Amino acid sequence: MTKNPFTNSLKSPEIKDVIIKDPFWGRYIDLVRDVVVPYQWEILNDLVDIPVKSHAIKNFKIAAGLEDGEFEGFVFQDSDVAKWLEAASYVLEKYPDPDLEKKVDEVIQLIGKAQWEDGYLNTYFTIKEKGKRWTNLEECHELYTAGHMIEAGVAHFKATGKTKLLDIVCKLADHIYSVFGKEEGKIRGYDGHPEIELALVKLYEVTNNSKYLELAKFFIDERGQEPYYFDIEWEKRGKKEHWKGFKGLGREYLQAHKPVREQREAVGHAVRAVYLYSGMADVAAYTQDKELFDVCKTLFDNIVKRKMYITGAIGSSAHGEAFTFEYDLPNDAAYAETCASVGLIFFAHRLNKIEPHAKYYDVVERALYNTVIGSMSQDGKKYFYVNPLEVYPKEVEKRFDRHHVKPERQPWFGCACCPPNVARLLASLGRYIYSYTNDEIYVNLFIGSSSHVEVCGTKVLLQQVSSYPFEDMVKIDLKPSKEARFKLYLRVPGWCENYEVYINGEEEQIQKLENSYVCIDRLWKENDQVILKIPTEVKMVSSHPQVRSNVGKVAVVKGPVVFCAEEADNGKNLHLLFVDVNSKCKLEFNSNILGGLYTVEVDGFRMAEDDFGQELYKRHRPKFVPVKIKFIPYYAWANRGVGEMKVWLWQWSF
Amino acid sequence: MTKNPFTNSLKSPEIKDVIIKDPFWGRYIDLVRDVVVPYQWEILNDLVDIPVKSHAIKNFKIAAGLEDGEFEGFVFQDSDVAKWLEAASYVLEKYPDPDLEKKVDEVIQLIGKAQWEDGYLNTYFTIKEKGKRWTNLEECHELYTAGHMIEAGVAHFKATGKTKLLDIVCKLADHIYSVFGKEEGKIRGYDGHPEIELALVKLYEVTNNSKYLELAKFFIDERGQEPYYFDIEWEKRGKKEHWKGFKGLGREYLQAHKPVREQREAVGHAVRAVYLYSGMADVAAYTQDKELFDVCKTLFDNIVKRKMYITGAIGSSAHGEAFTFEYDLPNDAAYAETCASVGLIFFAHRLNKIEPHAKYYDVVERALYNTVIGSMSQDGKKYFYVNPLEVYPKEVEKRFDRHHVKPERQPWFGCACCPPNVARLLASLGRYIYSYTNDEIYVNLFIGSSSHVEVCGTKVLLQQVSSYPFEDMVKIDLKPSKEARFKLYLRVPGWCENYEVYINGEEEQIQKLENSYVCIDRLWKENDQVILKIPTEVKMVSSHPQVRSNVGKVAVVKGPVVFCAEEADNGKNLHLLFVDVNSKCKLEFNSNILGGLYTVEVDGFRMAEDDFGQELYKRHRPKFVPVKIKFIPYYAWANRGVGEMKVWLWQWSF
Repeated sequence: MTKNPFTNSLKSPEIKDVIIKDPFWGRYIDLVRDVVVPYQWEILNDLVDIPVKSHAIKNFKIAAGLEDGEFEGFVFQDSDVAKWLEAASYVLEKYPDPDLEKKVDEVIQLIGKAQWEDGYLNTYFTIKEKGKRWTNLEECHELYTAGHMIEAGVAHFKATGKTKLLDIVCKLADHIYSVFGKEEGKIRGYDGHPEIELALVKLYEVTNNSKYLELAKFFIDERGQEPYYFDIEWEKRGKKEHWKGFKGLGREYLQAHKPVREQREAVGHAVRAVYLYSGMADVAAYTQDKELFDVCKTLFDNIVKRKMYITGAIGSSAHGEAFTFEYDLPNDAAYAETCASVGLIFFAHRLNKIEPHAKYYDVVERALYNTVIGSMSQDGKKYFYVNPLEVYPKEVEKRFDRHHVKPERQPWFGCACCPPNVARLLASLGRYIYSYTNDEIYVNLFIGSSSHVEVCGTKVLLQQVSSYPFEDMVKIDLKPSKEARFKLYLRVPGWCENYEVYINGEEEQIQKLENSYVCIDRLWKENDQVILKIPTEVKMVSSHPQVRSNVGKVAVVKGPVVFCAEEADNGKNLHLLFVDVNSKCKLEFNSNILGGLYTVEVDGFRMAEDDFGQELYKRHRPKFVPVKIKFIPYYAWANRGVGEMKVWLWQWSF
Repeated sequence: MTKNPFTNSLKSPEIKDVIIKDPFWGRYIDLVRDVVVPYQWEILNDLVDIPVKSHAIKNFKIAAGLEDGEFEGFVFQDSDVAKWLEAASYVLEKYPDPDLEKKVDEVIQLIGKAQWEDGYLNTYFTIKEKGKRWTNLEECHELYTAGHMIEAGVAHFKATGKTKLLDIVCKLADHIYSVFGKEEGKIRGYDGHPEIELALVKLYEVTNNSKYLELAKFFIDERGQEPYYFDIEWEKRGKKEHWKGFKGLGREYLQAHKPVREQREAVGHAVRAVYLYSGMADVAAYTQDKELFDVCKTLFDNIVKRKMYITGAIGSSAHGEAFTFEYDLPNDAAYAETCASVGLIFFAHRLNKIEPHAKYYDVVERALYNTVIGSMSQDGKKYFYVNPLEVYPKEVEKRFDRHHVKPERQPWFGCACCPPNVARLLASLGRYIYSYTNDEIYVNLFIGSSSHVEVCGTKVLLQQVSSYPFEDMVKIDLKPSKEARFKLYLRVPGWCENYEVYINGEEEQIQKLENSYVCIDRLWKENDQVILKIPTEVKMVSSHPQVRSNVGKVAVVKGPVVFCAEEADNGKNLHLLFVDVNSKCKLEFNSNILGGLYTVEVDGFRMAEDDFGQELYKRHRPKFVPVKIKFIPYYAWANRGVGEMKVWLWQWSF
């Protein structure tokens, strides 16, 4: 792309301007509104009878002086409330609900009472370590928590028009601005866990107050500079650790091993990384900083080409919840945190805004259709923190190096970052489907929906009908309020080997793609209809040969949806199954599995285990029995009790 | 076997009575005498310039009041000195050496000075925690250290006839006897780390003092009883831990989760397990305890049929240095501690003494020819603690869950249990080759050697010539001092599919094997010669299908010797190599590799890595290039710099 990427950044429609009506996503939208947000509210208020209590609202009550008690939970416990508020605001933006709004208002009231006179807001340091504000940025997530509160404030304002929470977070951000900076007397530091950066840019977007953007840029540019701030504060506070052994995680863990502009490889804690990179992309966009944008693109490519699971999960190691090294993607030991995939979506979406390319939404789709929705149980009340691509339950139970992997979703977590993260992402899904500029409309996701978008001074109603990814046809009706010339960009996913475009029933010969988007530049009239046919036939795919864990293995996919084999369908010992790669993949809708699910059946072989005898090692030619191997979508795994699961299966021949 | 296993236990010749002259083992025997024992002496005296210092001799000097200073090292640091003394004694038994004997005498002098008036001996509790003797058996290895000292005392006495160290350890054992037992006022406990049990039986063997046997039996039978002793002492000492988190390891870690007679599965810390089981076998033998012996046999079978690597290594998990669950034998995450294989040899040897069966020495051979000698560098000065079956150096460097694996042998360890363990085993190798009863001679190992054995009142000189396992013929000349009828048992290894026996040049038709030993019952005359032909052709073997890590893979073996592919011979990316299982294995002596080594070459294929492109996942039919894959014996790996290594390689077809 030769044009200046910053001159025409894409905008996203507001949540309220997009109505999702989709056979696949409809139930998630409903689930978040009807179950997830109400359920998480109960959790945050400790009203659900589960072993792990949140205490997050209670902390605010104590900090506000309304109740007695001790702070409980992690130092970043406030962020659970903030993320819930953000999710609830997105729900309210779309579906006004006086009861929910009342709860939201009450929490905001409470937050206001917990805020200090000077704007500071954090229940841990209010209740537990009053004198220690801003003394341990490396470990204590104060700016991270502030960032989530700011995101909530912006979301609430946009949803309701009310300014109460926005005022609180502006006061908080102003306080932070007064404390941090290069000026004499200010702290020249940044948070151990990035998040404030992207939050400040959101605040800048709604307030247009450039000091928030300036502060975001400050945090980004200070990161990793010498002298190393985290060592300075460490010395200053007498080398006291908040988390035992934290210093041992090193600087890469925090993406502070070098200034961000010098970073070329995605390293360290995966969630920290993608939150940071998202903030970097935001700052690059608004400051027209090509250098920073190029770093973002390099880091994105590094993740996507070297460090991402096929499910859009990232983080190969439980230690440090971190990236390891290129092509190191073990399926069973994966960390693959839900939040990291959510953050990867944030990052990809932001890059696409600056310089649209279908590859960004390829990643959004991967993460969304697999790890993100797979992290939640079908009833919306249980969650995975870690999303492995292979589970052998005895290994999870008996091997310490798999202690992070759970074979079942959990009702809640001591560190409960993931569940509200999924909630806020799904509640705001409408923002990801379309993008637009002054004279362009982009269709990024194929989700049945309608939206009003204004291009070239004309209001355009887009109506998308799709059963993607299980059927191949995407139909888009365009209804401009008057005839108008603009460009319609339809994303062609990277995995798509051919596609067809029809306009008003006639096939359109597309000469070439623009950044893998089909571009239709024409004078649009009312009732124009565009059809995109994307063959999402079921395929078997391989990994790059450097992915050691997947040599000799294939995975079954349909479009962005990754499938897996489960014990429930295939019996025990999935490691004995071999897929015949020449077999046809038979797609079927199974109404009797989990309320209806597309499954895939392929021919394969099962290695016999009864002919080996009692020895461990010997000369042996195994016998194989032909079998049908059944796959279900990965997002639906572990909804039928504890059992084995495998995404990558042996291939029978090459 | 129907006969009473206890009526005719096998004896082993003394070290001094066996001369090893073997093209393979000769250099190890020389290496231990000429390099390993002298080098380890320097290490124990902190005379070698390496990062990790032993301080073990220094601790004795401080405890003896000869030097000032603090105790340094682990709570079991004394055992390094004891194991070295044992190894040095074995060397002295065979090769009188006034200089070495002087060093040994000096250390013994020093140990005597460090011993308390009442017999107690332990430098940690003498220097560092004087008042805390016997208060933390679970964690502090006092009886373990005592056990090693006792073994040293017995070895030294047998080697030199001197009683100085024997007296010290008898006094120590008498003290222990006075402290431990069921009687009122005695401690009804046992050590967290078994070792004292087998040591006390050795002391009983040389002193014929039955209280030592009684004490060994006491420790074994108390183990795992309720009330749980380790909780009693834990309460008593105010719940103080010596090792942080030790209690979290649980009771299985210590094999104290139930009384030993109720145990059926090998669990917990692998070295603890096999030391315990060895002591159990000893006590079973001397007390004719069939129940205990049956437990030993069950545990042995459980290890060998479910939990042992093909290299004779045990322990699949770094956490707890422990067994995990059946068939869980990951190659890359293996713990496979050298000491555990040494202990497994002890255990197998003891079971064979009670009820000879070739399967026991199959395991001795596996451990000996692979893990034990492979743990030591070719120059005898560097050691592996962990002996993985697959190494990808970047993984070892970057993945925390591989932090225990080192791609290179180390000059020493903070916890240096393994190097002197290998030294004492190899220095006493002569004891493992033959066994005998009143009227039977067993040939267990095919190692060129000669030995005098007395059967049926006749002295028999055995002279074995062999180039096993690289050549197939074992020749044994028998020279009885007069004609005598007795049975000669020749072990037929379990992997051996056919064999031939010749007596004085004529083939002997063997009807059936007795416990997998060929039995030749005849009147032996001077100059009788027996030839055993054991075809050790190079084979490719498979693992039991339940070993998940090895499905679709083969290993190359020749007799007991396991081979591996190294980067030095095959380039990087060993994970892309596929073995053609129909290919002929070409054995060759390579004089230019590591001073001369048998290597194996097989046909195979290398998956192309240059045709996949930059993506991580896509539909792809890999290309393969025919290659020759070269294997070297596993014991010789990692002697040519850091590189990849793999024992189990993909098989091209089934």
